[in-house]
Amino acid sequence: AEVPTQSEVTATGDGKSSFQTINVTTEKNITTILLNRPAKKNAISIKKILKKSKNSAELLKRYVSHYIDFPKPLIGVINGPAVGVAVTVLGLFDAVYSTDKATFHAPFSKLGQSPEGCSSYTFPKIMGTGKANEIILFNKKLTAAQAYELGLVTEVFPDSTFQKEVWKRLHAYAKLPKNSLAFSKQLIRGVEKEKLHAVNAQECERLVERWLSEECMNAIMGFFEKKSKL
Amino acid sequence: AEVPTQSEVTATGDGKSSFQTINVTTEKNITTILLNRPAKKNAISIKKILKKSKNSAELLKRYVSHYIDFPKPLIGVINGPAVGVAVTVLGLFDAVYSTDKATFHAPFSKLGQSPEGCSSYTFPKIMGTGKANEIILFNKKLTAAQAYELGLVTEVFPDSTFQKEVWKRLHAYAKLPKNSLAFSKQLIRGVEKEKLHAVNAQECERLVERWLSEECMNAIMGFFEKKSKL
Amino acid sequence: AEVPTQSEVTATGDGKSSFQTINVTTEKNITTILLNRPAKKNAISIKKILKKSKNSAELLKRYVSHYIDFPKPLIGVINGPAVGVAVTVLGLFDAVYSTDKATFHAPFSKLGQSPEGCSSYTFPKIMGTGKANEIILFNKKLTAAQAYELGLVTEVFPDSTFQKEVWKRLHAYAKLPKNSLAFSKQLIRGVEKEKLHAVNAQECERLVERWLSEECMNAIMGFFEKKSKL
Repeated sequence: AEVPTQSEVTATGDGKSSFQTINVTTEKNITTILLNRPAKKNAISIKKILKKSKNSAELLKRYVSHYIDFPKPLIGVINGPAVGVAVTVLGLFDAVYSTDKATFHAPFSKLGQSPEGCSSYTFPKIMGTGKANEIILFNKKLTAAQAYELGLVTEVFPDSTFQKEVWKRLHAYAKLPKNSLAFSKQLIRGVEKEKLHAVNAQECERLVERWLSEECMNAIMGFFEKKSKL
Repeated sequence: AEVPTQSEVTATGDGKSSFQTINVTTEKNITTILLNRPAKKNAISIKKILKKSKNSAELLKRYVSHYIDFPKPLIGVINGPAVGVAVTVLGLFDAVYSTDKATFHAPFSKLGQSPEGCSSYTFPKIMGTGKANEIILFNKKLTAAQAYELGLVTEVFPDSTFQKEVWKRLHAYAKLPKNSLAFSKQLIRGVEKEKLHAVNAQECERLVERWLSEECMNAIMGFFEKKSKL
Repeated sequence: AEVPTQSEVTATGDGKSSFQTINVTTEKNITTILLNRPAKKNAISIKKILKKSKNSAELLKRYVSHYIDFPKPLIGVINGPAVGVAVTVLGLFDAVYSTDKATFHAPFSKLGQSPEGCSSYTFPKIMGTGKANEIILFNKKLTAAQAYELGLVTEVFPDSTFQKEVWKRLHAYAKLPKNSLAFSKQLIRGVEKEKLHAVNAQECERLVERWLSEECMNAIMGFFEKKSKL
């Protein structure tokens, strides 16, 4: 299997903090990758990205391609606000469970950028182009209930029982015939794998252009200025 | 940009009345094309179409291809009953806002015809084949609320505040970084552009055959006879 | 037209019982194929399948390909619990009407198997990957209301008036211009026909491997053991 290794996952940050903010554990047939940097909402530093835009895009492409190629069921468990790439890659997950307190926000055009994580393809496929564009073109922030209605989230649980309910389900899935699950997942994704890689490459190419553009720089500076005035 | 010019838009009618019934204006980064022939529900005359079916299909193909190729965000604003091609091209818009009084009707088979505006591809993609077929195969007329539920309409507004609400939103969009919007839209549509042109060509080819068929002629004559008896 | 003939439909069973459990009738432009083996829930015997897995897969592929190629509107009328392939082929129907007592269940992974009937492609297209996977990957059983919300079922009727309501509708459709219906249907499906045949072939190939696997055998034996203990 091609689970991203720790060294890959942490490649965008400096080694030390990453080991504190990403936990990978495997138990009872379930491998858990926990993104654990709530103070930063698990976002990737935009300053680091812009400094090395080509490398950043290459890294992003590699990161997303692991989701595309992952050969076993991939389940997203969203326990709070999801922003940017944490939202867009959800279309590559095989199921997404979320607490009712979660929110989903990918304000690309507001920051002079463009969609990634294959969302330019998966979101219109999941919910139709109009609804997808509200999110990835016009910066709409979704509640968990809205994300559920649009099919981006598979099921929503009350925050108070979230972990308990989800893990009950994950443990039940982990007892199902392993090969059957993996081969079925590969059937379902296989038909669009080539297209997904092409979309990923195009999105990342576009992002390099965006990150180097004056428009993007101005949008980001405007955003930080506004923030610092509050 | 490839906004259809007035001369193209009016090519199906006679010059004079068209200038009275189509208004094109540009203000604050927003170009508005207003179809303004409510007495005829903005429909295209079927008699004119049948008289010159090949030319009509060629014209329709060109008309629809402008929607496919349009490089900037394209937003539909529906303020009343939409019929035929005014419904089917909505799948090519990036967002569709509608008053709660709008209706959506594309009674192709009832009139011996077949779907156009790429609806044979976009409608199943947006809402699934079964729901799409109710509309484009079995002549179901949708309310605004139904069109919203199916994802054909992005958002519905009360008729009394429709223009105010929609324009507030359009003005907000028009202030977003321009290139970011255009490039993002092109990413989202680019992946299916080739397919959309192929679908458009096939649909128009099929329509020429339909318009020349006895079945279509009988269906249309039956429709007008029934109407004149009321 | 390529309606499966009786001899094809009955090829999986022995001739005699099949003639009692499948009725084919044509009246007023509507051909009805009634699967009538409620005691077995119209399911295909798993023992017969496993004994001749290659032949079974070939037969399944041929069965599903008739749905893909069928040139006229194909409407599913679901009057009770649907299981397995009776659920998965619904994505190939042009409309699906169901009583509110119907249920939809395709527990592939539970039985060590994998999706068929093109559901690995049609289900994600209709309802998005996450919702689709609940059904074809994680064995979720749907009520009629849930199947309707997901777009798998086009409309649900109260059980008490089901036949009356559905037939009223079917008779109305049967009076519409025939060629217009057939050609429109072919436009709508034509664009994905090649892909559907490829998906069907892949699914059946995968099923042969599954049926011959120890994992599948164990899962099925476990299922029957559990059942016999009740």
